[in-house]
Amino acid sequence: MAKSVLTPQDENFPQWYQDVVAKAEMADNGPVRGTMVIRPYGYAIWERMQRELDDRIKAAGARNAYFPLFIPESYLRREAEHVEGFSPELAVVTHAGGKELDEPAVVRPTSETIINVFFAKWVQSHRDLPLLINQWANVVRWELRPRVFLRTTEFLWQEGHTAHATQADANAYAVRILNQVYEDFALDVLGIPVLVGRKTERERFAGADATYTIEGMMGDGKALQMGTSHELGQNFSRAFGIQFQDESGANQFAWQTSWGVSTRLVGALIMAHGDDAGLRLPPRLAPVQVVVLLVKADGDSGTQAAAITEQLRTSGIRVELDDRVGVSFGRRAVEWELKGVPVRIEVGPRDLAEGLVTLVRRDNQAKAQVALDGLAPRIAATLEEIQAALHADALARREALTVDVGTVDDAIKAAQSGFARIAWDTAREAEGALNEAAVSVRCLQRADGGLPGSSAEPGLVATVAKAY
Amino acid sequence: MAKSVLTPQDENFPQWYQDVVAKAEMADNGPVRGTMVIRPYGYAIWERMQRELDDRIKAAGARNAYFPLFIPESYLRREAEHVEGFSPELAVVTHAGGKELDEPAVVRPTSETIINVFFAKWVQSHRDLPLLINQWANVVRWELRPRVFLRTTEFLWQEGHTAHATQADANAYAVRILNQVYEDFALDVLGIPVLVGRKTERERFAGADATYTIEGMMGDGKALQMGTSHELGQNFSRAFGIQFQDESGANQFAWQTSWGVSTRLVGALIMAHGDDAGLRLPPRLAPVQVVVLLVKADGDSGTQAAAITEQLRTSGIRVELDDRVGVSFGRRAVEWELKGVPVRIEVGPRDLAEGLVTLVRRDNQAKAQVALDGLAPRIAATLEEIQAALHADALARREALTVDVGTVDDAIKAAQSGFARIAWDTAREAEGALNEAAVSVRCLQRADGGLPGSSAEPGLVATVAKAY
Repeated sequence: MAKSVLTPQDENFPQWYQDVVAKAEMADNGPVRGTMVIRPYGYAIWERMQRELDDRIKAAGARNAYFPLFIPESYLRREAEHVEGFSPELAVVTHAGGKELDEPAVVRPTSETIINVFFAKWVQSHRDLPLLINQWANVVRWELRPRVFLRTTEFLWQEGHTAHATQADANAYAVRILNQVYEDFALDVLGIPVLVGRKTERERFAGADATYTIEGMMGDGKALQMGTSHELGQNFSRAFGIQFQDESGANQFAWQTSWGVSTRLVGALIMAHGDDAGLRLPPRLAPVQVVVLLVKADGDSGTQAAAITEQLRTSGIRVELDDRVGVSFGRRAVEWELKGVPVRIEVGPRDLAEGLVTLVRRDNQAKAQVALDGLAPRIAATLEEIQAALHADALARREALTVDVGTVDDAIKAAQSGFARIAWDTAREAEGALNEAAVSVRCLQRADGGLPGSSAEPGLVATVAKAY
Repeated sequence: MAKSVLTPQDENFPQWYQDVVAKAEMADNGPVRGTMVIRPYGYAIWERMQRELDDRIKAAGARNAYFPLFIPESYLRREAEHVEGFSPELAVVTHAGGKELDEPAVVRPTSETIINVFFAKWVQSHRDLPLLINQWANVVRWELRPRVFLRTTEFLWQEGHTAHATQADANAYAVRILNQVYEDFALDVLGIPVLVGRKTERERFAGADATYTIEGMMGDGKALQMGTSHELGQNFSRAFGIQFQDESGANQFAWQTSWGVSTRLVGALIMAHGDDAGLRLPPRLAPVQVVVLLVKADGDSGTQAAAITEQLRTSGIRVELDDRVGVSFGRRAVEWELKGVPVRIEVGPRDLAEGLVTLVRRDNQAKAQVALDGLAPRIAATLEEIQAALHADALARREALTVDVGTVDDAIKAAQSGFARIAWDTAREAEGALNEAAVSVRCLQRADGGLPGSSAEPGLVATVAKAY
C-alpha cells in the first residue's frame, strides 16, 4: 500500500473523515457557515446515487416535479408539530427586489407545507389517488454543529410526497419506499447493510404518525440515519384541506406519506467503507470503476493503455485513463487510492512484453498479473467480487460491534463503541436517560427483524447507539 | 382535429400560452409572487432537456459540481458592473436559526462570485487550466413582470464557469459551448432554428466583455433569448484573485467564461411549436413519443394494445399505454394532443381484425391505417419525419417573418410582427430609440452569419425584434 496522507482512523476518526473529504477532493466548506461546495468528484458520486435512486423511485410509480424554494411563513404554521420542529432551523428572506416583503418567505427546510397546498387543488376524487410525487432539490436547515455532507445548512436531497385513499395504502407505500428504494439501494449499490426499523415517538419526524428508518454502522461503530419514510396520517391533509370524494360520494381526508434521502449518503459511503488509504467505493456506485495507469511512456505502452481503456469502456465499464507520466507513478497511485477507485490496472512495458498487465484491487490491495486476453470479463468479475467483499466487511464489523444487553446501563456502555440491542420493554421508560448519556434509540424492530406496527407492541428490540 | 379547449393563438397569443401551460398540466403559479410549481409533465420535459444538455456539456469537457445557494453580500460587491446589474433583483436572507445574521446572505442570482472565490483557491499553475465546471441549480432574481417558465423569480438552470490560461482559449471555449452545446441542442433536439450572434454592449451580461446568444423566433414573431455564453475577460479573475504561474514562472490572471440555459427553454418549446390544439413536441425531446390509445375494451383489444406498447418500448421508443376506457375516447385524444405527444396509435377492434392500427401524427394531424407487421420501424421513421417537419415549420415561419430594412423607423415597424434585419452601422446610434419603441437588438452577426469579433466591426447585421 502506498504511504497514507491521512490521519489514521484509529487515531482520530473525525479527523480522518475531514482529511478524506479534503484530499479526495470531495468537498470544501462554503463561506456562509455550514454550507458546502461539492467538488466534481464528490458530485459525480452524488450523481450516481441520484441515478440509481431515481430509477427505483420511478419504478415505485412516483413522478418528479419541482416546487418553489420559498414558502410563505404562514404555511409553516398550519401544522402545529411541524412548525415547532422546524422553527429553530429556518432561514428567512425578509427583503427582495430592494424592498421589505409583506410576508417573509422561508427557505424550504422540507416541502410538506407548500406541496400540500397544491395537492389540495389537484386532488378532488378517489380517481386522483394515489398521487405520487418526488422532487430533487436543495433545502436549508440552520445547523449549530455543521459537518460536511453529514449535517450541512444547505443540502441536496430527494423528497417524496404522496396522498392515498386509505391508511392501509399509505402505510404500504411508506414501507415499499423504505424497502424497495432505500434498503435495496443501500444494500445492493452502496454495499452497506442497514437496520430497517421504526423510530420511537421521540425520534420521529415533526408532524408524522410514524417514521421508518434505515440505519447504517460507520467505521467507528456509530450509527448514521441514512433515509427515512414517514406516515403522515391525516395530519397535513386536515391542515391543508386535502379532501377527496370516495366511491360512495362522501368527502374524506387523504392519508399521506413523505420520505427522503440526502447528500448525507455521501458521508455514509465514506465512513462505512473508507480505510487509512482513503475511500473504498463499491463498484456499482463508483463513477470511475477502473483506472488504467500508464506506468511510463516506454515504447507502445501509451497506445496499449489507451486501447485497453477503450476496450473496457466498450464492454460497459466506467473507466478512466491516467497517462500523466509527468507525475510520479507513486503519487498517482496514492491519488487513485484516496479516491477509492475499485480496480487499478497498471500498464508497463515489462508486463506488456509478456501479454500481461497488473491488476490491483482497492478493497484488499491484492495485486495480480493478468492476461490482456480476456481482460474485460476478468475485470467485470473482479468488480462483482469487490462489491460483495465491501458488503461483507461492513456486515462483519456490524456483527462484531453489536451486543445484546439486559440493562440500560449496559446499553450506554456498549453504545460507546457499537450497537447495543436491548428489549424495548426495558428501555422504553429510559429514553430520556439514554439521550442524556449522548446515545439514542436508533430504531425499533420485531425480534425477527420485522417492522413494528406500533412502538407499543410487546417484545420489540431497540438498537441503541451513538449517532451522527 | 379534436375541438380545442384553448384560446386560439390568433386571438390572443399570451392567453393561449397561459392556457396551454395550465391545460397540459405543465406548471402552476407558486404562492410567493413570481415563483412556479413545475408539474410532472413539465418537469419530465425539463429532465429530457437536462439529459441532452448534460451529455453535450460533459462531451465539451466540463464536470458538474455544486456551490452554495447563499452568497455573502460582500462577494457581490467585488465586481462593480456585476453588482450594479444584479442588485435590484436580489433576495436577501437576514435572519436564520432564530437570529439576525451578522452579514446578510444573498440567494444566488448567478454564481460567478462564489465560484470564483473557490477558483482562486484551486488554480495555482497553468497545469490547473483550463478549469471547466458546470452546475445544475436553482437561482433567484426578483422579477417585476413574472411569466411562468419565461421569467420567474426562481428558475432552474445550468451555469458553466471556466478559467483559461489565454484569452484565445477562453474565447474558443465560449464559442464552443455556444455552437456545440446550445445551438446543436436547439436545432437537433428542440427543432428550433436559432440566430447565433453577439449581443450589443447594452444587452450584454453584467460583468462580461462579450456575450454570445442563441435567439429563437416564437409563434407570434417575437424573439426569445434561449441561451447565452459570456467571455468574462479578466474582470472576475482580477476581482477575486484567480492567478496562475505560467510556464515561464510569471503570475497571470486567468481568462474566464460563463454560460447558461434555463427552464425558460420549456417556454421556448411551447411557443415555437405549439398550435391551437396544444403543444407539439419534437420526438427527440418528447418524454412520451408515442401513446397507444385503446379505443374500447372489446375482445382482445386490451391485450393487443399492451403487447404493441411493450413491443415499441423494447425497440427503444418512449411509449405510454392509455387504456382508460372509462374516459371517453374523444376526451383522451384531446388530452394527448394538448400534451403534444408526437404519435398516437389508436387500437380498435375493427382495425385489429384486419391486422391494422390507426397512426395519427400530432404535427399535421395526418391519419393513416398501418399494418401491425413492421409497426416499430414504421413509427421510428415517422418520428424522424415529425422531428424534421417541426424544424421546417419553424424555419419557414422565421423566413416569412424576417425582413431586411434600411431605416430605424422601418425596423421598428417590421419588428412589430417579426424580425427586422438592419445594417448595424445604421442602427448603432439608434439603440436607445429602438428600446424606447419597445424593441431591441437581439444580436449582431456578420453578413455571412458568422460571429463578430467585436461590435465595432464594419458591415455587421443587427436583428431587431420584440422580445420575451
